Amino acid sequence: MSRFLSLLAIAGFGALLSTPAMAQEMPEHGVFIMNSLLFLFGGVLVMFMACGFCMLEVGLVRAKNTTMQLTKNVALFSIAAIGYYAIGYNLMYPLGSWSVDGILSGVMGVAAMEAVGVAPEAADDLSYASTASDYFFQLMFCAATASIVSGTVAERIKLWPFLLFTLILTALIYPFQASWKWGGGFLDEMGFLDFAGSTVVHSVGGWAALAGALVLGARTGKYRDGRVVPMPGANLPLATLGMFILWLGWFGFNGGSQLAMGTISDVADVSRIFSNTNAAAAGGALVALIMTQLMYKKADLTMVLNGALAGLVSITAEPLTPSLGMATIIGGIGGAIVVFSVPLLDKFKIDDVVGAIPVHLIAGIWGTLAVVITNPDANLGTQVTGIVVVGAFTFIVSWVVWTILKLTVGIRVSEEDELAGLDTAELGMEAYPEFSRQG
Amino acid sequence: MSRFLSLLAIAGFGALLSTPAMAQEMPEHGVFIMNSLLFLFGGVLVMFMACGFCMLEVGLVRAKNTTMQLTKNVALFSIAAIGYYAIGYNLMYPLGSWSVDGILSGVMGVAAMEAVGVAPEAADDLSYASTASDYFFQLMFCAATASIVSGTVAERIKLWPFLLFTLILTALIYPFQASWKWGGGFLDEMGFLDFAGSTVVHSVGGWAALAGALVLGARTGKYRDGRVVPMPGANLPLATLGMFILWLGWFGFNGGSQLAMGTISDVADVSRIFSNTNAAAAGGALVALIMTQLMYKKADLTMVLNGALAGLVSITAEPLTPSLGMATIIGGIGGAIVVFSVPLLDKFKIDDVVGAIPVHLIAGIWGTLAVVITNPDANLGTQVTGIVVVGAFTFIVSWVVWTILKLTVGIRVSEEDELAGLDTAELGMEAYPEFSRQG
Amino acid sequence: MSRFLSLLAIAGFGALLSTPAMAQEMPEHGVFIMNSLLFLFGGVLVMFMACGFCMLEVGLVRAKNTTMQLTKNVALFSIAAIGYYAIGYNLMYPLGSWSVDGILSGVMGVAAMEAVGVAPEAADDLSYASTASDYFFQLMFCAATASIVSGTVAERIKLWPFLLFTLILTALIYPFQASWKWGGGFLDEMGFLDFAGSTVVHSVGGWAALAGALVLGARTGKYRDGRVVPMPGANLPLATLGMFILWLGWFGFNGGSQLAMGTISDVADVSRIFSNTNAAAAGGALVALIMTQLMYKKADLTMVLNGALAGLVSITAEPLTPSLGMATIIGGIGGAIVVFSVPLLDKFKIDDVVGAIPVHLIAGIWGTLAVVITNPDANLGTQVTGIVVVGAFTFIVSWVVWTILKLTVGIRVSEEDELAGLDTAELGMEAYPEFSRQG
Repeated sequence: MSRFLSLLAIAGFGALLSTPAMAQEMPEHGVFIMNSLLFLFGGVLVMFMACGFCMLEVGLVRAKNTTMQLTKNVALFSIAAIGYYAIGYNLMYPLGSWSVDGILSGVMGVAAMEAVGVAPEAADDLSYASTASDYFFQLMFCAATASIVSGTVAERIKLWPFLLFTLILTALIYPFQASWKWGGGFLDEMGFLDFAGSTVVHSVGGWAALAGALVLGARTGKYRDGRVVPMPGANLPLATLGMFILWLGWFGFNGGSQLAMGTISDVADVSRIFSNTNAAAAGGALVALIMTQLMYKKADLTMVLNGALAGLVSITAEPLTPSLGMATIIGGIGGAIVVFSVPLLDKFKIDDVVGAIPVHLIAGIWGTLAVVITNPDANLGTQVTGIVVVGAFTFIVSWVVWTILKLTVGIRVSEEDELAGLDTAELGMEAYPEFSRQG
Repeated sequence: MSRFLSLLAIAGFGALLSTPAMAQEMPEHGVFIMNSLLFLFGGVLVMFMACGFCMLEVGLVRAKNTTMQLTKNVALFSIAAIGYYAIGYNLMYPLGSWSVDGILSGVMGVAAMEAVGVAPEAADDLSYASTASDYFFQLMFCAATASIVSGTVAERIKLWPFLLFTLILTALIYPFQASWKWGGGFLDEMGFLDFAGSTVVHSVGGWAALAGALVLGARTGKYRDGRVVPMPGANLPLATLGMFILWLGWFGFNGGSQLAMGTISDVADVSRIFSNTNAAAAGGALVALIMTQLMYKKADLTMVLNGALAGLVSITAEPLTPSLGMATIIGGIGGAIVVFSVPLLDKFKIDDVVGAIPVHLIAGIWGTLAVVITNPDANLGTQVTGIVVVGAFTFIVSWVVWTILKLTVGIRVSEEDELAGLDTAELGMEAYPEFSRQG
Repeated sequence: MSRFLSLLAIAGFGALLSTPAMAQEMPEHGVFIMNSLLFLFGGVLVMFMACGFCMLEVGLVRAKNTTMQLTKNVALFSIAAIGYYAIGYNLMYPLGSWSVDGILSGVMGVAAMEAVGVAPEAADDLSYASTASDYFFQLMFCAATASIVSGTVAERIKLWPFLLFTLILTALIYPFQASWKWGGGFLDEMGFLDFAGSTVVHSVGGWAALAGALVLGARTGKYRDGRVVPMPGANLPLATLGMFILWLGWFGFNGGSQLAMGTISDVADVSRIFSNTNAAAAGGALVALIMTQLMYKKADLTMVLNGALAGLVSITAEPLTPSLGMATIIGGIGGAIVVFSVPLLDKFKIDDVVGAIPVHLIAGIWGTLAVVITNPDANLGTQVTGIVVVGAFTFIVSWVVWTILKLTVGIRVSEEDELAGLDTAELGMEAYPEFSRQG
């Protein structure tokens, strides 16, 4: 309604209208529409992160394992769509709040959208958004969690056991723990804060990846005679493309997690989140750039890429309350974490092919702690509790699942196949059949 | 308007207000704005599909034909912009309904947008969207049709005859048949249902490609001594990138085809469409993955990529009414179609370099038939009629145009040039000049 | 508000309501929300242009300089985020209008967003958009300017001096001159028209690049014995990918520059801009395609890519007022400019690795002049004045900065390092370590 008409309305209604400013607000249906649109716009951006993860990982594996990495990424994203539909979504939001009944009911059902051409009075909650838009958005978060794992365990894991793990992760592990915070469960009630998922998404992916890396073991020849043997990625432009796509997608990841943009306050908050998310990524990239220059006398592109991603992960638990400067610093510390923790993992002979554990797990922990810096509602003890509870649950369950898979179907290719490369050995299809190998 | 104010309004107006809920709706201008925004958001996503097709095709051709495939894709998208502007748009929507007068008027004119800074009372239809946003969105569908053709006829067709065919396809063939359904023509009046174009876009691209493949003949050496000689793509990461971009763009393709998101009902429908589109792609990819594993003992990435795309094509004729589960199944059947029909085409020595005929034509037919499963308004006979009429028209006209081109300017490069590769022979520019070829 | 209710309202209010149509408009808060959303949607698209520039440049450099080009592009985008935050934004919009006080105040401060959960009455300007969304959008323009420079000076510049220049460009040079037009400064008051930045962004990037190319000198061996030695790009699919991403991003670049989409008039204008932007790119690509075919008997993909980009730059100064046909022509002339000016630069031994000077500077000048063709408010003399003033300022300051960098830290790698390639010499990391080089 225009300012002019609302003035007329004031004149007309007289004393009845004690809050004339409300006439300038979005009508209730408009709020519902804008919130749904935020989920669709944000969800599309997060969906594209599946492509970003794929390109990042494919750029960082060796040419002989490229087709396998591509296949895994397309398949895991597709499996997430099944697992989250069949079980995950209802497990995550059981009857609106966490309860045994809710979980039982959820596990039994499948995700259902509102009716076609739903009437306003039939919509679940007019003040929120369409159920299908919420499902779409939440599914993409579940899929992102699975994408994190595939990079760490690359170059030696078998296809089908990996996909089986992905199914369990997306149908059960991710949604179960996510319900503790985002399903209104006990972590939420405790006051644990994790705006867009530094813990709920990123560290969960990281813990699952860490468990996988431990059960699976390092690549053959990676750690030899106390040395770390470099196994450089075959295609750094693709890795950089993947990083840029992830940076792009993160605006949807963090911005969409405001869950609303139908009021001035909400849309201004979403705008803050976009700006802070960008600042944190920039901080992470620059700190990694400067640190590798200082420490190794050469800027290291792979560290810069992972630095930017760590900056993004670091701001994900609280992208709203920081100032632009503080967001840059929080992201920058994420970048520093990557530079320090990549060699640290190698020291423990934990072979993380693309650096997903430093980026998603360690920076995810940092980001969850960093909430206390700018959000007065955060409590350090509660943040630590959330990190530990989610971490212990995810790591232990993942470790058990990986171990069962190892003992039953086996999760690792033969050494011969590993040396030949998974593409020819497992799939019979080279990714770059015409480009001859150096040396 | 807020819920509070509308309650006040009820009190104020008394009996005058028999439907107070309407005060919560988007104002009429808001609906127009949201609808236009849907076209812009959706159109941008569909525009990016041009890049997706390009990357997919470039990944699946051999290195020596890469620059040519890139050139064709950029050029065909640009030509579509000219052809659809100069003739196509007005041919497709002739005077609002199909008529000889309309077509004549359309052929004579060029697409025109509303005036700069148009006043609301001067807008064509306040309940729809801005003309320029509609044009932008529809143009991208026309361009997508042209993109489909270039993959099939790759690696042996000359540049300029291909571009001449593209001009005829985008200026005349596509818009003429599209007017039968989307221009309010006889197929629409019959009750033929094709929400976003399984037939109108995808099968039309597929029929034009099939005609081209038949007139052009197979690549030299593709079918030798009764054997199918594999000619693997040079760059599978790019093919996968292209598939992901197409998956991304399909949210705009199908979601935007709701044509409206200014009401709760419409935005909830758009959300359903997004979710179903994703489910169908996932179903297509997974069925292709599992089937190739079972049939050939090895998962086949190129089948998985085409399976996802076939899933997307399959849901395109009706992305709204299926449940998530049914969407997954409809897409999954699309994936199965690809796995079966790729070898079938080879049996008939129809050489389709990237598999566009199985994906867009055969899955497009399936998707158009599948409308009857979930949409009670659909009639199987009418769907078959639509498929046959559009197919016969497009195939025959395309075949005639390809044949005329063949008999006049010639459409195929010399065998010598084909073996050398189109990049050096036709363009004098290698796509990967520094990467030496294997063995 | 619905049409029905507004009719009721008319009946109810009687003579009080002289303009009932206003009841159909977006409420004031809705306008603010839509404008902010335009900045977020547009800003995300422009952000992705950083990836587009990166891929374009990486595809056009030789394999041995690829990691360096990737590193520069990620770093420059990150540095822009710092420079524009710390100084640039406030320098560009000093106290709302250009003044010594304003600049001084700006230089001292950093960009600040509105408060978290801002109340409507506390928002800066309810008729505009959220400050953070505006910041986000404007930052991306600043970053695009920096991206333009990196392509021209590729393959021989040192990393850190380049990044130092980027910091000065994004913190000082770009925002200072941008304030003259977009900060309400003297060029704006004169009536200089530059809708989305043919001059303010593209020619500024081009002038800075030209100054860099002159101070830096040509690549070793590029001009030998009066001949131009071709140094073809290593990966044309990536260059094409980059072009498509830039084309995509340009819808945000030009469309977002409408700065509003909360009214029918504004959203229809944004739609016009999207359509015209696409038409101009198509025109540029096709003219370059046809001209290279006619002039050299072979279509030249790199010219087609740059032709499309030049078409986009050409329409950027006035994407709103042209008809679709005129937009195609304006873009087409941009394409012709590229075909003529690329060899011209070589004649003057100005070594522009990716052709950024023809695309962004020369087509940028053309686009700024072309405003007079369709916008009756434009004055040729004023347009020339704006071009000259901005050009002189940017070129001179850039030349001085490049020269100081050259004389102090040095900007060029040793000839030995240049021949070996910057990737091994400067960074110790190959981009394609497994793909052996031809010859």
